[in-house]
Amino acid sequence: MKALLFDVFGTVVDWRTSVAREVESLCGPDIDSHAFADRWRSLYQPAMEQVRSGNRPFTRLDVLHLESLRVVLSEFDVQLDDSDVASLNHAWHRLDPWPDSVSGLTRLRTEFIIAPLSNGNISLLLDMAKNAGLPWDAILGAEPVQTYKPMPDAYLRTADILGLEPSECMMVAAHNSDLAAAADCGFATAFVARRLEHGPSQTTDLAAESDWNHSIDSIDSLATQLGC
Amino acid sequence: MKALLFDVFGTVVDWRTSVAREVESLCGPDIDSHAFADRWRSLYQPAMEQVRSGNRPFTRLDVLHLESLRVVLSEFDVQLDDSDVASLNHAWHRLDPWPDSVSGLTRLRTEFIIAPLSNGNISLLLDMAKNAGLPWDAILGAEPVQTYKPMPDAYLRTADILGLEPSECMMVAAHNSDLAAAADCGFATAFVARRLEHGPSQTTDLAAESDWNHSIDSIDSLATQLGC
Repeated sequence: MKALLFDVFGTVVDWRTSVAREVESLCGPDIDSHAFADRWRSLYQPAMEQVRSGNRPFTRLDVLHLESLRVVLSEFDVQLDDSDVASLNHAWHRLDPWPDSVSGLTRLRTEFIIAPLSNGNISLLLDMAKNAGLPWDAILGAEPVQTYKPMPDAYLRTADILGLEPSECMMVAAHNSDLAAAADCGFATAFVARRLEHGPSQTTDLAAESDWNHSIDSIDSLATQLGC
Repeated sequence: MKALLFDVFGTVVDWRTSVAREVESLCGPDIDSHAFADRWRSLYQPAMEQVRSGNRPFTRLDVLHLESLRVVLSEFDVQLDDSDVASLNHAWHRLDPWPDSVSGLTRLRTEFIIAPLSNGNISLLLDMAKNAGLPWDAILGAEPVQTYKPMPDAYLRTADILGLEPSECMMVAAHNSDLAAAADCGFATAFVARRLEHGPSQTTDLAAESDWNHSIDSIDSLATQLGC
């Protein structure tokens, strides 16, 4: 195993709490900020599906997020000026890590190449890393390979960029579907349970749903299992 | 100024001494290892020119380096087995930094986004960074933008990936031609004199040849000029 590739939203950072905080700050206390964050996130897969299906050329996530944000602002009947809309869209550049992420990644980096393999664009992931102290060796993911997970090329082209065989790469994610797609491409897999990603009433991805190579509840635990 | 983009070969790392050392180690003391390194490097621009001119699709530098290496091995009448050829080709993944590079970059990183804007491919630059301790925020350059410097798109697409205007980016390089191309795209510029890049008889790029925004002789000095 040479490289560990990480899903980011939900796996490394707590998008829901972070986005809701910025929604409340800009839109005020009368908005259900967690419902706003959930609704925004619910438009994420349909937006990427337009690209995956070939209906739309590759478009970076910042643009998809902005289009979705305008929909949600309208649904919640919130008026913001353009600079506040742009600022709120950049909430995704400032997501807080889970408490174990920085320490776990720092330990893993001593033995492995570590990089995001996220659908986030490079600028989003770079700003997030600088803000949160995530010690990535490189910023990889959808934008360098110009396709969105779970398309096979998202995994295969990432391995190719690294000059590695898929079997030398491990996908680390809190989502069983991401790991299934990576495994189909020959990646090793590690499931990190993030039972509060979607809040206290989360019903999905509470546990590993297949025989992944590792199943842990923190990135620190993965570092321990891998001897770092 | 938000981001500092660095040329790497010659500006951040001493390719000639590092490559010559590995040539001597693999090919023995009867080869003029510095002449070998110089000849290998002399095939760098012609190889990229095939891509820039449109005669060849974008091809990452590891591949161009390998093709050039086979030419030079033949010219120097050196026989190596395939695994030694592959190992020698990866000498470019293990180049040593100039003495001021790590400290200067570490200081600059506190105030700016820092990334390579090199013609090296991602894997080459990532391995080099891990080996030398170069604290990049991201690995950018020719491979993410799919074109080689000094094509304008190499600079313009890099700024676009970062979500920045060209005027918010500074190119840092030991080569006047690189800075001229970056300035034409609207980048700020910093010239770092590396008077031994080509050895003791170097005749080019000994000094700034235009009114660049900064002209220094180390990355540490750039950090000082920029108040880091």
